[in-house]
Amino acid sequence: MTQNTNSWTENDNKLSKTFTFGDFKSALIFVNKVGEIAENLGHHPEIWFTWGKVTIACSTHDDGNIITDKDRELTQKIDLI
Amino acid sequence: MTQNTNSWTENDNKLSKTFTFGDFKSALIFVNKVGEIAENLGHHPEIWFTWGKVTIACSTHDDGNIITDKDRELTQKIDLI
Repeated sequence: MTQNTNSWTENDNKLSKTFTFGDFKSALIFVNKVGEIAENLGHHPEIWFTWGKVTIACSTHDDGNIITDKDRELTQKIDLI
Repeated sequence: MTQNTNSWTENDNKLSKTFTFGDFKSALIFVNKVGEIAENLGHHPEIWFTWGKVTIACSTHDDGNIITDKDRELTQKIDLI
């Protein structure tokens, strides 16, 4: 489970949020769940991760790298993981 | 399979390399293989990825964020994926 309940931050035309974990494996499991959601939506974020930390950034490249409803839907589903 | 055969770049005390893929799922499978190697070695890189692209960066935090033999071993095993 994630240990970070902060909201998403809008910056540089992206919605981003960092989630923290107690080990690498938990972070990787989370990344896979995000990946499954992204594949189901046909909308893929940027994912940066390392030991115990995952940062997700969402923007819509097809619409000129802006934040759209697709990104808001993706962030809402990620928050339900 | 990766489509990038470039060597690792040493920059900012990290060894980094970008691998490209034909879709998101292939990139995610690669990330999981990197994760398995990292867990087996007990040495974890930074992983940045999005649709079709994965960038790996390796440095040794325990030794003051420098490149060590642990990083070279990790990069060699990643190249064998």
